[in-house]
Formats: sequence, C-alpha cells, structure tokens
Amino acid sequence: MRILLTNDDGIYAEGLCALYEALFFEHEVYIVAPEAERSAVGHAITIHLPLRVSKVKRGKYFWGYAVSGTPADCVKLAIYELVGEVDLVISGINRGANVGVNVVYSGTVSAATEAKILGYSAIAVSIDGYEDLDYCFAANFIAEFLQKLPLKGLKTPFCLNINFPSVNPSRIKGIKVVPQSQAKLKEFFERRYDLHGKVYYWQGAEEHTETNPETDVVALKEGYITITPLHYDLTDHSMLNLDTSKLSLV
Amino acid sequence: MRILLTNDDGIYAEGLCALYEALFFEHEVYIVAPEAERSAVGHAITIHLPLRVSKVKRGKYFWGYAVSGTPADCVKLAIYELVGEVDLVISGINRGANVGVNVVYSGTVSAATEAKILGYSAIAVSIDGYEDLDYCFAANFIAEFLQKLPLKGLKTPFCLNINFPSVNPSRIKGIKVVPQSQAKLKEFFERRYDLHGKVYYWQGAEEHTETNPETDVVALKEGYITITPLHYDLTDHSMLNLDTSKLSLV
Repeated sequence: MRILLTNDDGIYAEGLCALYEALFFEHEVYIVAPEAERSAVGHAITIHLPLRVSKVKRGKYFWGYAVSGTPADCVKLAIYELVGEVDLVISGINRGANVGVNVVYSGTVSAATEAKILGYSAIAVSIDGYEDLDYCFAANFIAEFLQKLPLKGLKTPFCLNINFPSVNPSRIKGIKVVPQSQAKLKEFFERRYDLHGKVYYWQGAEEHTETNPETDVVALKEGYITITPLHYDLTDHSMLNLDTSKLSLV
Repeated sequence: MRILLTNDDGIYAEGLCALYEALFFEHEVYIVAPEAERSAVGHAITIHLPLRVSKVKRGKYFWGYAVSGTPADCVKLAIYELVGEVDLVISGINRGANVGVNVVYSGTVSAATEAKILGYSAIAVSIDGYEDLDYCFAANFIAEFLQKLPLKGLKTPFCLNINFPSVNPSRIKGIKVVPQSQAKLKEFFERRYDLHGKVYYWQGAEEHTETNPETDVVALKEGYITITPLHYDLTDHSMLNLDTSKLSLV
C-alpha cells in the first residue's frame, strides 16, 4: 500500500519513527509531518500564512517533508502537492490518549479526519501515557492490523481512532470497538502572577467524568485497545425537526 | 438571559459589536473574545502557553475581555473564571459562511461547540460574504430568535449553526433547518517563490462540490437563512460492528 504518515508531535517524534519502522518493509511509506509539535491544535488549517516545506532525513532510510503548518495542513499538502494519491493515511503514534471530548481538540485525530474529508481512509494512533511508551508494540499491532483486517471490505473511506493503554502488552485485556464518550472533562484554570505582578492563566484538565464501560474513555482505562470509527458529520440529526414558523424575516 | 458573546474575528470585529447592540438592552451581555483574529483555528485550545486577559472598552457601554487564545479558550475561560454560568453563548457574527466541511475548520463554530461540551446552549452566527455586510439584520434576527423560539422547549444544551446569505433582507427566501453538507471543497495550493528563490505555498479553497438543496451549503447559496443543529459526537455509529476477531495481541 501507499501509506502517508503524519502526526501532531512533529516529524522528529519517536512515535512516527516507530510506525515507519514497522511499515516501510512491506509498504511504500511517505512522511509529511509538522516541523515541530502541534498538540491540541484541533482541526486548524493555515490560511493566513504561507506554508514552508523542508526535507528532513533521519537515519539510513527515513526521510520526510517537514511542514510549517498543522497536521490537517500536512495531509492536504501531501495529497495535493507532495505525495499525491495514497491508499491510507496514518497519524501518530501520539503521546497521550485521544479519547472522549479530547478527540475534538486533537491534532492527531484531525489529520485522520482530514484524510477522510479528502476521500482517503485513515487511522489515528495514540498511547495513553507520556513516559516510557512501548511504541513498538503499538506500531507492530498497526502493521498486523493492515494485514489481517479485511480493510478492502470496510466501507471506505473509513477513519479509525485507535488508542492503546500504556501497560505491558501481556496485561492488555483485549480489543473493543466503542463510541466516543460524550462526557465532560474535569477542567480548571490556574491563576498565576508573572514577575511584574500581572495575571496569567494555565489551562488544565484532570480526567474524564465518564463511567460507561462501553465508551473509548473507560474501555481504554480498563486496559483495552479501543477502536472508534469516526466521521465528520457534526449535524445533530435528532434536532432537524426544529420549528421556525414563528420567525419573521422583517 | 445572561449571554456570553465571543467570536473568532477578534474583540474589535464589527459583527461582535452588532450582536452586542442588538442584545444588551434586553439581556445581560458579557464579552470574552480573542484579542485578534483567529480564523480557521478549528477547535484548537491553548495548553502549552499561558493565557493573558485584558479589559477592552469600546464606546459608552461596550466592554469585554480580550484573551490571547482561541475561541474555544475564550469560552472555557469565560465560564470557569471570568463570567461564570450563563444561559446562552453566541459566537459571531462571522465574516464568511461556516457551512459544509468548513464547519470543521471554523473557530466561530468551535466556540459554540465548546459551550455545548461544557453543558451550555450556544448559537454560531455567520454571514456568507466579506464586504458590505448587513450585520444589523443578522443581529436583529438573532435577538428576535431568542424572543420567539421556544428555546426553553428545545433539548438543551443545544448548539445551532446559523448562516445568513449576504443579500438585501427583502431578497432572503426563507429559513431552512438543514444538515451539514459532507461534500468536499474544491481546494488547491498555489506554489510561489520568495525573494530568495525559495518555495512557499498558499492554501486556498474555491467552492463546495455539493448539489443537494437540502444541505446548509446549497440552501445558503440559494438565499435561505440556514440553521443546522450541531453536536460533537464524531463516532461513525454505522461502523461500530467492526470485526476485530482476527487480530491477535501477541
């Protein structure tokens, strides 16, 4: 397969390299990724600044295009200019889970959603942790996923959001296909003072308030690999019967 | 009602001011908006930089908080720190339509979606044009909307994406409640050379490829005010039956 790799941790991220190493032997792999970290950029695109591209080489085989934009920019630029048609876009492997409402803020996931918008199947890959991550297990799982799943039988373009628990592989409980949790995060702002006595705020989030085990948030926390199929239809179809007859236009 | 106003064109934008003027007489209106334009930021949030807030005064009555972050940051910071509980969040009035896949990239819409995530009802308001916009008509329509629609009867929190055609109000054909178009944009990158001979790209989009009149894209183009109820469930529920039994964990 012709596979485009991208991420939101930047082209030098370990997770991207692990995916490359697990895939390059069997697939034609192209890399177009942000030149530096672009976490929590959501589905931002760069329309008020020009985009710069540079070639980056790492090690013997690995080279790619570093882009001065967001993950969504990288996918568009790859498809329209740098790489052309591909069979699959893979975004990751992200440091930190992308489940629940965090899916909305995620640059990693937005790259995969962007691929689907453009008509290409995509997978977003994340690990639920920040230290001592086993990228190899996740990368090899994705390689096996591409071999074993009847991807051609799936409705295309598909967009799958896959999250791995950060535990020893022997302790992973299984694989669950689950919906995105809609529960709120516990969030807060920490008010601080700078050296001139002026206020600034740090934005933080503690954890999800979700308790339903049949959601990405809880299944991941319980030790399952979670797979959530995504789309980009933001229509709340249950409300399309809204009555506007009382409104006048004058 | 206690109403929070925000936008992605920045606190000095004309559209925000028009909404304020149409609403402040009957409602308690608070303004928390980006200190400068933040178009196409999608649902980005600021977690790697501190947020700064300053008070901005315009004219006799109008004052608000200018935030060094994105529209979604503004809503979070308003609710958690600056304003507290509100009855409704209104984002806009945006210069330029937010319909079809552009909803995914829109900072204006993401502020409204963020409100819904936090449990507050919200309306995103945009006009399909960039020059000589009649903000007054749209702002007054929203004021009337709040009076006449049985908002308390609606499933809450709701999130409505309202777009106005940029035509003389007498030529508006009516109001349509329609889903978000899923059709692709016609996009392109323009390759240019800087003064040092180095390549850069501008990202551009021409128009939607949608033809179905029962979508936001086409209804707006045909001269209707469009209302699209939104949610933030990105799960493709039609694919939750994905078979993973062939995958092994070793």
